[in-house]
Amino acid sequence: MEPYELTLAEAADKIKAKELSPVELTASVLARIEAVEDKITAFATVTADLATKAAKQAEEEIAAGAYRGPLHGIPVGIKDLYDTAGVATTSSSKVRADYVPTQDSAVVERLDAAGAVMVGKTHTHEFAYGAVTPTTRNPWDLDRVPGGSSGGSGAAVAAGECSVGMGSDTGGSIRIPASVCGTVGLKPTYGRVSRRGVASLSWSLDHVGPLTRTVRDAALVMDAIAGYDRADPASVDVPVPDFAASLDAGVAGLTIGVPVNYYTERVDPEVAAAVSTAIDVLVEQGAQVREVEIPLPEYILPTEWGIMLPEASAYHQEMLRDKADLYTDEVRLYLEVGELVLATDYIKALRVRTLIQQRWRDLFESIDVLIAPTLTTPALRADQPEVTWPDGSTESATDTYVRFSAPANVTGLPSLSVPCGFNASGLPIGMQILGRPFAETTLLAAGQAYESATGWAKLAPLP
Amino acid sequence: MEPYELTLAEAADKIKAKELSPVELTASVLARIEAVEDKITAFATVTADLATKAAKQAEEEIAAGAYRGPLHGIPVGIKDLYDTAGVATTSSSKVRADYVPTQDSAVVERLDAAGAVMVGKTHTHEFAYGAVTPTTRNPWDLDRVPGGSSGGSGAAVAAGECSVGMGSDTGGSIRIPASVCGTVGLKPTYGRVSRRGVASLSWSLDHVGPLTRTVRDAALVMDAIAGYDRADPASVDVPVPDFAASLDAGVAGLTIGVPVNYYTERVDPEVAAAVSTAIDVLVEQGAQVREVEIPLPEYILPTEWGIMLPEASAYHQEMLRDKADLYTDEVRLYLEVGELVLATDYIKALRVRTLIQQRWRDLFESIDVLIAPTLTTPALRADQPEVTWPDGSTESATDTYVRFSAPANVTGLPSLSVPCGFNASGLPIGMQILGRPFAETTLLAAGQAYESATGWAKLAPLP
Repeated sequence: MEPYELTLAEAADKIKAKELSPVELTASVLARIEAVEDKITAFATVTADLATKAAKQAEEEIAAGAYRGPLHGIPVGIKDLYDTAGVATTSSSKVRADYVPTQDSAVVERLDAAGAVMVGKTHTHEFAYGAVTPTTRNPWDLDRVPGGSSGGSGAAVAAGECSVGMGSDTGGSIRIPASVCGTVGLKPTYGRVSRRGVASLSWSLDHVGPLTRTVRDAALVMDAIAGYDRADPASVDVPVPDFAASLDAGVAGLTIGVPVNYYTERVDPEVAAAVSTAIDVLVEQGAQVREVEIPLPEYILPTEWGIMLPEASAYHQEMLRDKADLYTDEVRLYLEVGELVLATDYIKALRVRTLIQQRWRDLFESIDVLIAPTLTTPALRADQPEVTWPDGSTESATDTYVRFSAPANVTGLPSLSVPCGFNASGLPIGMQILGRPFAETTLLAAGQAYESATGWAKLAPLP
Repeated sequence: MEPYELTLAEAADKIKAKELSPVELTASVLARIEAVEDKITAFATVTADLATKAAKQAEEEIAAGAYRGPLHGIPVGIKDLYDTAGVATTSSSKVRADYVPTQDSAVVERLDAAGAVMVGKTHTHEFAYGAVTPTTRNPWDLDRVPGGSSGGSGAAVAAGECSVGMGSDTGGSIRIPASVCGTVGLKPTYGRVSRRGVASLSWSLDHVGPLTRTVRDAALVMDAIAGYDRADPASVDVPVPDFAASLDAGVAGLTIGVPVNYYTERVDPEVAAAVSTAIDVLVEQGAQVREVEIPLPEYILPTEWGIMLPEASAYHQEMLRDKADLYTDEVRLYLEVGELVLATDYIKALRVRTLIQQRWRDLFESIDVLIAPTLTTPALRADQPEVTWPDGSTESATDTYVRFSAPANVTGLPSLSVPCGFNASGLPIGMQILGRPFAETTLLAAGQAYESATGWAKLAPLP
């Protein structure tokens, strides 16, 4: 087994025990990038020299007895939406081709403080405004998309090009690539992790969080990055738990909400079956199931889009004036449409969001977690711009991916996507576990219980 | 002395001691309304029969030993924006001429539970959208406006037509009438008092609170109405203090911020002098003064209007479609303008508001309260639509009134307006005491310290 194949937790154990050097691990990961990147294109920038230097520093610190914790010496890929001091941060757009930040984003600062080693900047769908990431291919099937917008991080983690990929999630952009690339992805509660220095798509729906190989790895990253930051106006000053400590709490006594609507409509039967089987696994471990109705289902997507369109256009307004021709046609069109939205319509979307949030709060009075498919379907082909459902309706790739993931953005509730099997073609399927505000530890414990019982976590079988 | 001349606290003491009956007090107040209402027109509806019945019930309860507390048997006027079950609630608009709610607003429910006796519904500037209340005259000078939008409550309290008037405040609408009518007015922290059942002007700037004759009276009302209500999405679930209990805490050791800008510009010299003298009174009692700069002064009014215009139009959209001709020209124009605001501009106003809020939070790190004039000028004449300043600039009555009061709406911080003297023409002047979020007790203690030392509180000298 090559070092790049280790999970974060496995590598951390070996590094702590001095059985593995950060230099050796980073070299293995960089070699893996070298070997597979021409097929995947997960990275906008590979920072091999910086990584080698950082790994060397980690090695020296650990040798000197200054071990910083589980992330010390661990190779991470950072979505190219996150500011990284001195390293180009393009948001995978020609608009930002020349942008080199002078300051790290809050999460990168925290990862750096924890001793992580950045191996590169991962591709995003342009400015995070899409669910496909056309630059990048899915390691499980190179003809398919890695999802998006954090497609580079999903593909890189699945292909062994880094142990952790950082993502952002406005309508599902962490969980979509996690689901189609067969990785774990956690969108924390709105306000849990600082977004300072991450390019905004829609400030009131944006979240940042990790994509990892296992649930434990996600908990270890959360331990490094969670916490209040007054520089992010949405950051919430609540106690931060030890995420890894309560991982093995199990699911005995937990009440799982299972939706009887919304997540049951226009969904691939193999996906629905895999999630249903996964719930059975948790029931065997002592969880109970309660059927629940998703409130106001017809308002979820209009609310997501009604908020995202104008917020994105407000953020991009000056850039769009100056550099309209540098945007892709797709993103420029979204931004131009968003400029036409009236304040009264946006305000109505905000008010409906509040209503949806209240109804979901009620929903969680009778359940501890909600489990549903992360996505309607496994990875789509790159040449497949839309899906046709058995009822004859068609849906764009982005719409079909966002449909199941957006509720957690509209509500702000935490959602953990966990691999739960493969379809007949060998493509990964993901289920999402949603919970109450700031109850990430409950989601992680449920995810861990499932993962331990099934052991799906593995790398894509690339050469 | 007639019973109507008593403050809430004085009347409550006598009622509790069975020296005064609620029936006697209510009869005195209703007689006062009868005597002066043709000059003032503070009320949209006088509910004499209901009040007499409620007073009788209060009398019986108290006789039976079931005294509910300081508001038991106290006559209150309710702004006609507040839903009152079975009583017309017109928002002083022809649009709502036929609206009779079936449910009380949250505050009315709480006042009712505390045993208060509603004597009528007080006039508002149409739908609270203005600072003048053209229906109503100022008891201190009948040629002058009572301010607005809670002008009916201000005039009624000042004229002895009720002990307490309830108001709402989106840009100053409690504090403006309080200041020009010589009453106390408290705009609590955003989220402190439930707005359920009160017609909205601008949901993210709206507050409800009391106008009273004294600071103690305001504290007693707050004790009845403050607290979390999940039916108001903005309501905040924080501990509710005993507002009256800490009234006599004094100001020794308190640091008073005194602005060197914004509140010093285009302000009537008599107003500035009165506030300055009032601050000296607090310094004599042990407070310290610290000069402070108001942050981002040029953004305050654009933010207030940039948020209020579209939020009001969103609330009124359907009514404006159906009944445009029933609005006054002034309010219809505001509502039509608000419909043209783009979401991107509204979003920018929201983002600037966040910035302003952060800068005020910083400001309050070095001071405990901020003291400033409530308004730029005493009551304007009813035939005076605008003010001309010595620098040659002119300003509409609404703009000049909102300029000093709006910062507490944009920031959401609590602000207590307290009478602080009279100008040479005998018109009342008000000062406002602003504080940190949910620090109403600090404001009330400062207001009480000032009021006790000076004793301004009195009724307008109407016949």
